[in-house]
Amino acid sequence: MAEIVCLDIGGSKMLGGILSAAGAVLATRREPLSSRDPRDVAHQAAALVRALLDQTGVSPRGIGCAIPGPLDRRTGTIVHSPNLGWRNIPFAAILSQACRLPVALDDDARCAAIGEWWRGKRQHAECILFVVVGTGIGGALILHGRPIYGATDNAGEIGHTVVLIDGPRCSCGKRGCLEAVASGWALAEAGRKSARSGNAPELLTLAGGSADAVGADHVLRAARCGSPAAQGILENAGAMLGLGIANAVTLLNPQWVIIGGGVGLAGFDVVLPSIQRALRCHALAPAAQAVTIVPSSLGEHAGLVGACWIFLQAHPE
Amino acid sequence: MAEIVCLDIGGSKMLGGILSAAGAVLATRREPLSSRDPRDVAHQAAALVRALLDQTGVSPRGIGCAIPGPLDRRTGTIVHSPNLGWRNIPFAAILSQACRLPVALDDDARCAAIGEWWRGKRQHAECILFVVVGTGIGGALILHGRPIYGATDNAGEIGHTVVLIDGPRCSCGKRGCLEAVASGWALAEAGRKSARSGNAPELLTLAGGSADAVGADHVLRAARCGSPAAQGILENAGAMLGLGIANAVTLLNPQWVIIGGGVGLAGFDVVLPSIQRALRCHALAPAAQAVTIVPSSLGEHAGLVGACWIFLQAHPE
Repeated sequence: MAEIVCLDIGGSKMLGGILSAAGAVLATRREPLSSRDPRDVAHQAAALVRALLDQTGVSPRGIGCAIPGPLDRRTGTIVHSPNLGWRNIPFAAILSQACRLPVALDDDARCAAIGEWWRGKRQHAECILFVVVGTGIGGALILHGRPIYGATDNAGEIGHTVVLIDGPRCSCGKRGCLEAVASGWALAEAGRKSARSGNAPELLTLAGGSADAVGADHVLRAARCGSPAAQGILENAGAMLGLGIANAVTLLNPQWVIIGGGVGLAGFDVVLPSIQRALRCHALAPAAQAVTIVPSSLGEHAGLVGACWIFLQAHPE
Repeated sequence: MAEIVCLDIGGSKMLGGILSAAGAVLATRREPLSSRDPRDVAHQAAALVRALLDQTGVSPRGIGCAIPGPLDRRTGTIVHSPNLGWRNIPFAAILSQACRLPVALDDDARCAAIGEWWRGKRQHAECILFVVVGTGIGGALILHGRPIYGATDNAGEIGHTVVLIDGPRCSCGKRGCLEAVASGWALAEAGRKSARSGNAPELLTLAGGSADAVGADHVLRAARCGSPAAQGILENAGAMLGLGIANAVTLLNPQWVIIGGGVGLAGFDVVLPSIQRALRCHALAPAAQAVTIVPSSLGEHAGLVGACWIFLQAHPE
């Protein structure tokens, strides 16, 4: 029962960990991503893995890697990751070569959902909708105790369901996606607009006087300090997030909606009332009554824990 | 390997069949529903079953029954069926007593989806979104080769996902549901409005000169005859149906969307272009590229075939 090295690679950070085969996190290291070139990323990962192994003295079975998709988990190829700017990159092979260890990889939102289901507070729950609110909005599904991949590994993309016909343009090219109106990016965009218009002096102050510097974190902090403009922005975003979640709840009838991601976790208490209001208003009653919305219990570690499970599934002893 | 008696009970009809344990339809009988009282329905079913058994001379193992939900398949209780006007009716027990045979029942949309997946043209497809367009809009999901029930047996209700915030009132009490803008009921309502306003003389003629008599079938026939008003109604409904399907496709990444139901099958060719346009416009590209939209291959028999599977699962030999 040797340990597994797990990586959670995002558009701007790399988190590494040593996990027991039971999914316990034994050690972690976090670094900013120094380059987005696939070979550079693999070499940075190899150095991070070496440092973790030196620190802990373990001889790992291999690497489980959570990474933004869409990807083909069978071939370990990143098909098209807007977050990393990659297209058709056989990253499992590149990473395996750089680290001289077997690699299994999967989508980061799916890994986080699996982590929660395998070792989080909602352990072994049958039906989970996982929503990751970060710069963008991702998601993943666990239904009847199994991760759902869909026909081509793209299931779970709640961030690209349309909540507002002819709404603002999304990073995916479509209009009115949930991601375009309720992501960290959308919060920041609305915050900058509000600061520029002179309607949000608190926001401007928090961002050091520059409207261009307003980020999602400033909007969250301003709302907590009582800024009506920031509160309005979060109410709108929460209502849209709630509509997207309500439709998924009506379609899937999950027991749990788990919210993760940096923005989702930081703003959970602020947007929860708007989400719950939207759920009562827009979801079919029997499905709305059966669901509870909670924050991710594993926080930043969820992706690592899920990546561990992914490795163990791909390389059973 | 004795035969199974299967029933598909709707708000206005009762279809019965004798099926082989391999899901082949050996005989069928169809009747209008003579009453909606649960005991009357069970007695009508018992008479229909007797007639089918007399006709075929088989000694069946039991009864599989497709019926409008929401229901609790474990206890065989119809929790709340707006179509039948039932609340908390232990129909499996009532039907079993009336017919003196073991009964297994499940939601009619789920039975139809299972029928297609078990014995239809898309046999053993891994991921199917089934959409039933009749008077209302129902649906069901098969993901990774398994019917999806959700936490409380309510999964699949695509008809009650919201496609138009503050849209028209739906039978479920909410606003802007897909069912409120794209069901047979919604087509008829729009047709009547159009006929009353004098904008659709063709529709009025087809309905015998009475705007109040316009039904979904008249709208479909008028559209085929070139009525611009009827074509406009179907284009709007198709665009909304397409948006609802696009969001489900983005979330679930199915290989097949199968359209069933009386209105869905009769109007399939007319609304398909609108659905496909909406899919290109609103669904995430990798999921849209992976999916094909087809009509149900088993038509009216899909529910019977699925009810046969349901019985065999509940009562394995």
